[in-house]
Amino acid sequence: MEALEQIKERMQSFLEALDSPLTLELSKHLQSGKMLRSKLVLNIAGVSEESILLCAVVEMIQSASLLHDDVIDNSLMRRSKPSINAIAGDKNAIMLGDVFYSKAFCELVAFHKEYPQIPHIIADSVVRLALGEIEDVYLSQSFNTDEKKYLAMIEKKTAALIESTAFAAALLAKKSPQDAKKFRNYGRNLGIAFQIIDDILDITATQEKLGKPILNDFKEGKTTLPYIYLYHSLQEQDKERLKKSFKQEISQDEMVWILQQFQQSDAIKRSFRLAKNLGEAGMQSISDQSCNKLIAIMQEMIDRDF
Amino acid sequence: MEALEQIKERMQSFLEALDSPLTLELSKHLQSGKMLRSKLVLNIAGVSEESILLCAVVEMIQSASLLHDDVIDNSLMRRSKPSINAIAGDKNAIMLGDVFYSKAFCELVAFHKEYPQIPHIIADSVVRLALGEIEDVYLSQSFNTDEKKYLAMIEKKTAALIESTAFAAALLAKKSPQDAKKFRNYGRNLGIAFQIIDDILDITATQEKLGKPILNDFKEGKTTLPYIYLYHSLQEQDKERLKKSFKQEISQDEMVWILQQFQQSDAIKRSFRLAKNLGEAGMQSISDQSCNKLIAIMQEMIDRDF
Repeated sequence: MEALEQIKERMQSFLEALDSPLTLELSKHLQSGKMLRSKLVLNIAGVSEESILLCAVVEMIQSASLLHDDVIDNSLMRRSKPSINAIAGDKNAIMLGDVFYSKAFCELVAFHKEYPQIPHIIADSVVRLALGEIEDVYLSQSFNTDEKKYLAMIEKKTAALIESTAFAAALLAKKSPQDAKKFRNYGRNLGIAFQIIDDILDITATQEKLGKPILNDFKEGKTTLPYIYLYHSLQEQDKERLKKSFKQEISQDEMVWILQQFQQSDAIKRSFRLAKNLGEAGMQSISDQSCNKLIAIMQEMIDRDF
Repeated sequence: MEALEQIKERMQSFLEALDSPLTLELSKHLQSGKMLRSKLVLNIAGVSEESILLCAVVEMIQSASLLHDDVIDNSLMRRSKPSINAIAGDKNAIMLGDVFYSKAFCELVAFHKEYPQIPHIIADSVVRLALGEIEDVYLSQSFNTDEKKYLAMIEKKTAALIESTAFAAALLAKKSPQDAKKFRNYGRNLGIAFQIIDDILDITATQEKLGKPILNDFKEGKTTLPYIYLYHSLQEQDKERLKKSFKQEISQDEMVWILQQFQQSDAIKRSFRLAKNLGEAGMQSISDQSCNKLIAIMQEMIDRDF
């Protein structure tokens, strides 16, 4: 059986062990994602009983965080399908998220015997993820023009779990503490670069590719990095005009105007350059680890043209 | 410093270590409860660095579960004060709950070195708590007349964490596995009895004592044990009349009628008898442990007259 299938089976067996038909029923509606975190683990630590367990735990945490994130953002779509909160309501999405989080923690403690650091590494990254969610909501209350605050937020909300996953996988693979830190650094950079590119795609991709309308972030009140750069590049009058669309349903005309401003500025290019630099630094940090597949994952992500 | 104060300080230091002003600000609105779970730990394991840590972890889990519970039940009051969701909205209550849960798990793993069972015992009870919440919501969708389903739900939602706390405290106190199970059994019985009495008080207490209107459970769609017993004792016609008030704003007249039915039936007495029997069995199970304070806690709870 292919490793990713093994991971899904493991997650399913976690759920079945709960002996809760209600939970199984709700979980049916969950969409499986690209399993980026699992791919990191498998490429760093290979396929083993332990690596499959780590993947299943991390994917359950990731699912839990998305369940709560969709409630918090009131997002009705996830991976081109209706989200759980859209199908079964906010209550069920919150409760299912709590079951997933707690079950993941419950399984995570199994690592302490052979890998005493792993439970704390993963649990600590979930704290950061949760803090990142809070920062995200607060930044969304007004038009944020502070690049540092934005980067600090995505480092927690998106990168923390990817970073900790890569770190834990390196420990599973019995890397030295020094080498394990290189994988941690790779994971952190991958996470931040991934989020920046995701934010760029919300502006530059087509609705079909995104599975949701474009400029959705801005409508939801998220001033992502390209908007921050764009804002700072604009004249006073245009700054005000951009701000007016923030957190609004944007008219077709205004959407065209915003996209034109992006084309006339270097905001997208600058954002992408940062993602690319982070990606390259991430690859650099594991350059002595002969891990071509991780290089390929990062390469594939930053090998674009904006 | 008194032990309960030490626990609160420990929780505060957990929060401060997060380096998140937003989290600190939100947490200010949290009301401290009776700290029943901490009292169990202190009475079983005494006051030590480790027992204070266990208490702080369990209280954080308890707070997290109440934060989510209030969102799910749309409860605007908690301990006679506005709930966090009432003050800061559902989003913030969900996110703060996630921070509390994850921080608690993060600290919980510290026990694995000397007490390898404790992290799993507590984490597993949080899974049951989360499953109990799901069952509670589903039971509330219609008028539940099944005593077994109700008891299975409160065993998870209320008793699981009290049971695991008493069990973990007994392990901290270096009790033998056999003796530790006695404390676990005590905790389980205390938890179920506690919930049944809480459900009775929702019917028999005054609004001032409850800090919320009476018969609130029924209005919220919760057919607690006294309602189940009452229902089965009624004639067909009255069964239908009772059902009509389920999940409704109840008129003054109908409230009087429901209270009269309770007075004329033995539903309250029967519910209390079950709580009392469970309480006595719980005391019995630790009768050879010379733990007078635990006996007193249970005694105080069941030494009532309904």
